[in-house]
Amino acid sequence: MNFQLTIVKIGGKVIEEPDALKTLLKDFSQIAGYKILIHGGGKTATEVAKKLGVESKMVNGRRITDEETLKIATMVYAGLVNKQIVAQLQALRVDAVGLTGADMNLILSRKRPVTDIDYGFVGDIKEVNFRTLSELLNQSYTPVLAPLTHDGEGNLLNTNADTIAAETARALAYDFNVRLIYCFEKKGVLMDENDESSVIQTLDSELYQQYKEKGIIKEGMIPKLDNAFRARAAGAQEVIITSAAGMNTGKGTYIK
Amino acid sequence: MNFQLTIVKIGGKVIEEPDALKTLLKDFSQIAGYKILIHGGGKTATEVAKKLGVESKMVNGRRITDEETLKIATMVYAGLVNKQIVAQLQALRVDAVGLTGADMNLILSRKRPVTDIDYGFVGDIKEVNFRTLSELLNQSYTPVLAPLTHDGEGNLLNTNADTIAAETARALAYDFNVRLIYCFEKKGVLMDENDESSVIQTLDSELYQQYKEKGIIKEGMIPKLDNAFRARAAGAQEVIITSAAGMNTGKGTYIK
Repeated sequence: MNFQLTIVKIGGKVIEEPDALKTLLKDFSQIAGYKILIHGGGKTATEVAKKLGVESKMVNGRRITDEETLKIATMVYAGLVNKQIVAQLQALRVDAVGLTGADMNLILSRKRPVTDIDYGFVGDIKEVNFRTLSELLNQSYTPVLAPLTHDGEGNLLNTNADTIAAETARALAYDFNVRLIYCFEKKGVLMDENDESSVIQTLDSELYQQYKEKGIIKEGMIPKLDNAFRARAAGAQEVIITSAAGMNTGKGTYIK
Repeated sequence: MNFQLTIVKIGGKVIEEPDALKTLLKDFSQIAGYKILIHGGGKTATEVAKKLGVESKMVNGRRITDEETLKIATMVYAGLVNKQIVAQLQALRVDAVGLTGADMNLILSRKRPVTDIDYGFVGDIKEVNFRTLSELLNQSYTPVLAPLTHDGEGNLLNTNADTIAAETARALAYDFNVRLIYCFEKKGVLMDENDESSVIQTLDSELYQQYKEKGIIKEGMIPKLDNAFRARAAGAQEVIITSAAGMNTGKGTYIK
């Protein structure tokens, strides 16, 4: 029988608000069994970039990671956000270790090929080093992963935290019973984006297609759900999309 | 018989100049046996602080770490500098893992008590977790330590990298034959600060006292040498003060 592993992805406002983060980390610390926390960077990176006079470059609505933006991502995600979370988890008696994909060669990626858009220093994941992650878990450490990977040639690459969560779940699904929880601003995937009580309880790929076609599910939810479905298909036993407050309540949208 | 462990501390200009850093990391990668790299932050933190409009506060010539300065230290040291080093070492086939004292509860410290000066968020080391460091080394990882520790209550604390190097050497001297190398701007401790050929070959504590009294050794060299002597007294077999280029040449000032 495999052991239970809970992978929690957090991002957005909850990272920027110290009280909200504190509550979330307390909830996280109470999860039994093995666990991994994966975080994005929130708006702090944008704010720091603005103060440093580095403009966010967008092409066709997509953010471009140039050299200066990558430096800021490395400072904010791998430095500030990651280490503040680690220090707080240590105070909650969770033996956390904050890592990027470069540390211990955890996540190897490939710079996204230039097609119509050059995304810059953005990495598409090639391989998650599940052995090392398993060893850390078995030694009672709780990995806290920042959304940066590396290409094995000395370069860090910006990598979407939702994707890191999905690929980590996928890589560890052979060795653990994986529960993957995506925490975001809403209580789950909503039928009506203005009605927090309209949470879709379960979503299978057929229904997902229909909702996309009808425009009920759109924009930023689509890449998030694509990641969620990929993790589920790859063997994650439970994939849940919920709010930070929903982490331990069992409420939210379950991906079937 | 104990295994050989080389602890290298780097700081200053070498961190800021990409080509110099590259050469240094290549030299570091060629050190045989177990190794740990400990880095300062160089002037990058000061530059980032300046751009962000955070003033460096000095009291009696000592830098004060207020909340904003600590954030910048966390961004630059634990983020930018640490992860760039880790990614480059990975490319050199060194399985590096970048850590602060908060990660894996590696270095516990105490916020420096306020006496005539309130240094702010500065940590004096209470305990280096030598067991965890030993385990990492035995698993073939190369720890890369940023100059931040934690108080176990959720707070990161700025901690001098020279001191971290000395305390790490001290903590590991029971389990390893420790060689501690402090790399800095000069080729060693100089008799005449303007003459690079005046390197003092060996320095014992008696001579150190004499040179201090005569004003030959002064200012920033004193805390560095105090750390070096403390590590030597605590069992580090070799303690050497040299330049980055001197890392593998065996040249420099040997502490007896």
